[in-house]
Amino acid sequence: MNHNEATIAALATHPGMAAIAVIRICGPLAFDVVEKVFRPAGGKVLKDAVGYSILFGKLHDSGKVIDEVLLSIFRAPHSYTGDDTLEISCHGSVFIQQEILQLLYRNGAEPALPGAFTLRAFLNGKMDLSQAEAVADLIASGNQTSHALAMQQLRGGFSTRIKKLREDLLNFLALIELELDFSTEDVEFADRSTLETLVKHILDVIERLRDSYAMGNVLKNGIPVAIVGMPNAGKSTLLNALLNEERAIVSDIAGTTRDTVEDEVVLDGFGFRFIDTAGLRETSDTIERIGIERSRKSIREAALVLYVFEPETWRNGSAKSELERIVQEVSDHAKVLCVLNKCDVVGSAILHELPGNSFSISAKEGRGLDALQSALVSFAKAGSEQNDLLVSNARHYTALGKAADSLHAVLRGLELRISGDLLSRDLRDALDALSEITGEVDNEEVLGTIFGKFCIGK
Amino acid sequence: MNHNEATIAALATHPGMAAIAVIRICGPLAFDVVEKVFRPAGGKVLKDAVGYSILFGKLHDSGKVIDEVLLSIFRAPHSYTGDDTLEISCHGSVFIQQEILQLLYRNGAEPALPGAFTLRAFLNGKMDLSQAEAVADLIASGNQTSHALAMQQLRGGFSTRIKKLREDLLNFLALIELELDFSTEDVEFADRSTLETLVKHILDVIERLRDSYAMGNVLKNGIPVAIVGMPNAGKSTLLNALLNEERAIVSDIAGTTRDTVEDEVVLDGFGFRFIDTAGLRETSDTIERIGIERSRKSIREAALVLYVFEPETWRNGSAKSELERIVQEVSDHAKVLCVLNKCDVVGSAILHELPGNSFSISAKEGRGLDALQSALVSFAKAGSEQNDLLVSNARHYTALGKAADSLHAVLRGLELRISGDLLSRDLRDALDALSEITGEVDNEEVLGTIFGKFCIGK
Repeated sequence: MNHNEATIAALATHPGMAAIAVIRICGPLAFDVVEKVFRPAGGKVLKDAVGYSILFGKLHDSGKVIDEVLLSIFRAPHSYTGDDTLEISCHGSVFIQQEILQLLYRNGAEPALPGAFTLRAFLNGKMDLSQAEAVADLIASGNQTSHALAMQQLRGGFSTRIKKLREDLLNFLALIELELDFSTEDVEFADRSTLETLVKHILDVIERLRDSYAMGNVLKNGIPVAIVGMPNAGKSTLLNALLNEERAIVSDIAGTTRDTVEDEVVLDGFGFRFIDTAGLRETSDTIERIGIERSRKSIREAALVLYVFEPETWRNGSAKSELERIVQEVSDHAKVLCVLNKCDVVGSAILHELPGNSFSISAKEGRGLDALQSALVSFAKAGSEQNDLLVSNARHYTALGKAADSLHAVLRGLELRISGDLLSRDLRDALDALSEITGEVDNEEVLGTIFGKFCIGK
Repeated sequence: MNHNEATIAALATHPGMAAIAVIRICGPLAFDVVEKVFRPAGGKVLKDAVGYSILFGKLHDSGKVIDEVLLSIFRAPHSYTGDDTLEISCHGSVFIQQEILQLLYRNGAEPALPGAFTLRAFLNGKMDLSQAEAVADLIASGNQTSHALAMQQLRGGFSTRIKKLREDLLNFLALIELELDFSTEDVEFADRSTLETLVKHILDVIERLRDSYAMGNVLKNGIPVAIVGMPNAGKSTLLNALLNEERAIVSDIAGTTRDTVEDEVVLDGFGFRFIDTAGLRETSDTIERIGIERSRKSIREAALVLYVFEPETWRNGSAKSELERIVQEVSDHAKVLCVLNKCDVVGSAILHELPGNSFSISAKEGRGLDALQSALVSFAKAGSEQNDLLVSNARHYTALGKAADSLHAVLRGLELRISGDLLSRDLRDALDALSEITGEVDNEEVLGTIFGKFCIGK
C-alpha cells in the first residue's frame, strides 16, 4: 500500500454555495502543487512558511486569478494525516470550488477517495483504527449521546481498554511460548490455574463489553421504540403527540395505519426512533395482514415497546391477553411500557389494576405525556450508565465475539490439559481478534470497508 | 451604527454533514468569548497567539469536550473584517456545528445576520461598497464569465474607474466653489468651455458604462436565448439537444409545449438560459393563447432569439413572414439567428435563400448543432469584449443614470450660462450619485438592502 506516495485533494466542507469552502491537499507533493498556483501576498514565500501558520494570497490559473484565498499550512508529521497538508479556504462558490480542485488535479494532485485523509492518519500511526472509526461516527453524530460515544472512542478510551486486555494475554503467551523452547525439559513457566483465572477475567470483561453493544448500538443510532396495540387504540395520535407534528395519518377508522411509520425525536440528548405500527387484530385484508406482520417484527426489534390500549379493552380482557402475547415476543434487553390512552374519569377507575410501568394519558389532548417521556429518558439513561464503556460498533462487537470464542477454546484446552503449543494457537487467535479492533493487524479488505463509508475530504 | 461593538458568530461553510465545517466569530470580544471555551493543546495560550497562526485544541462546555478543533487567529486590523476574528474548524457534524454556535452565543457572541462580516469589512474601510457587492457576486458565480466579472469588481477595477471620474469632477467643483467665495469680485477660476469638455467626456464614459449593462447583466445571470417558431418546428427537440437531456416534453402533436420551459447551459465559460416557448400560431385554446403571449414576452426579453422553422414553411412563405414579425419585436441589443430544422436533402435546396445568421440543423439527429453553439459563443464573446469594463449590477446602473441626469443638467446650465452656485449643486448631485456606487455616501437603507442578500457567515 503506497499510501504516502500520492498527493490527494478534495473538498472538505459540505458542497454548495456558502461564505467559504475549504479544500484540503495532502501528501509529499502538497507544497510543490500549491506553489505552482498560489502567490502569497506581501512578498511572502510558501516554502518558508512554518506549520500552523496562514498565508493570504491569490490562486492563479495560467495568469488568471481564480480566487483570493487563505492557506493554512501543516508540515509533516504535525498534521491530521501526518503528511504535509495545506488547506485552502476559498470563497464558497460552487464554481470556484470546482475550478480550484481541477487546478490542483492538473498540477499533480489526485482526487481523494472517501476517508482517504483519515486512512492516512491511521497508516501514519496518528490514530488507531477504532479512533479512525470514531471520526466517522463523530461526523455522523446527531445527538448528545451518539456524540459522547464517538468522542470517547476518538479520545482512545475504548482502545486503551482493548490494549490492556491484549497486554495481559501477551504476557501469558510469552511465558507459554518460552515453555515450548524448553519443551524437552518438561517445565511449566506458566502456571495453569493462574492462566485460567486470567482468561476467565478477560472473558468476563469481553462479555460485558459485548452485552453493552445492544445498548451502545441503539444509543448511537436512536433507541427503537415500537408503538403497538389493537386497532384504534390511538397509536398514531400518540406518535404525532410525541413528535409534536402531524406525521402519521390519523382517523377514527380502525386500521388506518397499514405500513409502519417511523420518525426520530431527541429527548434530553437521547435519540428515539418511534415506530408507529398497524393495529394488532385478526384480519382478512391482505395488505393489513402484511402490516400486522411488520408490527410483530417491530416488537421483536424494539428496545422499548409502548403498548397502547383503551380502558374499554382492558375491562373486557382483550388488552390484557394481547399484552401477555407481546411480553412473550419482545427481545431480552427490551422493556414494555403500558400506556392507557383516552384516559378520562371512567378510565382512571381501572388504574389500580394495571401492571407496573403503566401510564395513563390522553394522546389527543397531550395529557400525561411528560411522565411517559421521562420514563423513556430514564430507560436510556440507565442503559448508558450500565457500563462505563459502551460498544457501539458492529465490527468491534464481532471481533470481541471472535476473541471470546478463542478464549473459550483456551479454557477447554486448560481443562483437557492440552499442550502449550495448542494453547498458544488459541491465545494467538484471541489476540488477533482484539488487534483487529485497534487495527494492529493489517487487513486491506477491512480498511477498504471502514474508510469507504467516510465523507470525501475526511 | 455601532457596527463594531457586537461580537458576532455564524457558520461560514455550507450547512450539512461534511469532513469539516468552519464557524466564524468576529468582534471586540472574539478572543474573550473563545478563551472561555477553548483549551489549546501543548500548553499554548490563546491570548499570546499571533495573527495568521493556528492553534489545535479542545472546545469545552462546562467540562464536557464538544470537539477537537483547529482555531485560526486573525488580529485587528489584519483580518477580513478588520476586527479581531477567529475561525473554528470543527468536525462537520450538524450536531457539533449547532453545539458550538450555541456555546458561543451563550458566552457572549451574537448570531450574525446575512452579510454581517462583509458589512463590517466595508464599514471598517477594508473594501468599498462595489467590492463588497462583488464578494456576494463571486460566491454566487456559476460560470467563468460571472466569476470573471465579480473578480474584476472585487479587485477594484470598477471602483478605480468611478473614483477617477469623481476626482475629475471634484477638481472642477473646487474651482467653481472657489469662485463663490470671491463672488463679489466676478472672477471665473473655472473655464466654462473646459468644464463643458470635461462634463461631456465624463458623460461619454458613463454612457458607455451604462450601455455595457445590458451585456454585463446577461453575462452575469446567463444570456437569455428564446427558442421560437411555429408549432411543431422542433423547438423542444432543439432545447433537449442543446441541454443534452430530455428536459422538455416532445411529441408530434403541434402545441405540446404550452408554458415556457427554461434551463441553463454553460458553453465555453458563458452561461446561456435557453427558453423553449409555445409555438406561434392563431389559436382558440385559452391556455395555448397564454403560452403564445409568453412566447412574445420571451422574444422581447431575449438577448438572442433562435427562430426555428421547417423547410416546408419557408417554401410556403409563412416562416418568412413570421421571421419578419419577430425581427420587429426583439429588443435593441438582441440578435436573431435563423435555424432551419429537419434539414435533409430537400431542405438544403433552400439554404441559399435564407438570410445571413442562418443555420441548418437536424435537432433530432444532432446534426449542425456545433456550428449553432459556436455562433452562440461568438455572440457572448463579442459582447464581453465590447467594453473593457462591464457594469453588471442594477444598483450601479441606476446610480450611473442619476449621475448622467445631473451632468446633463450641468451641460444645460452651462449653455444657459447659469451662476456658479447652481452649477455647483448639479455637480454635487452627480458626485453623490457616483459616490453611492463605492459607498462613500452613507445610506443605511441601501446597506441593508445590499447586505441582506448575502449568505449567513460572510
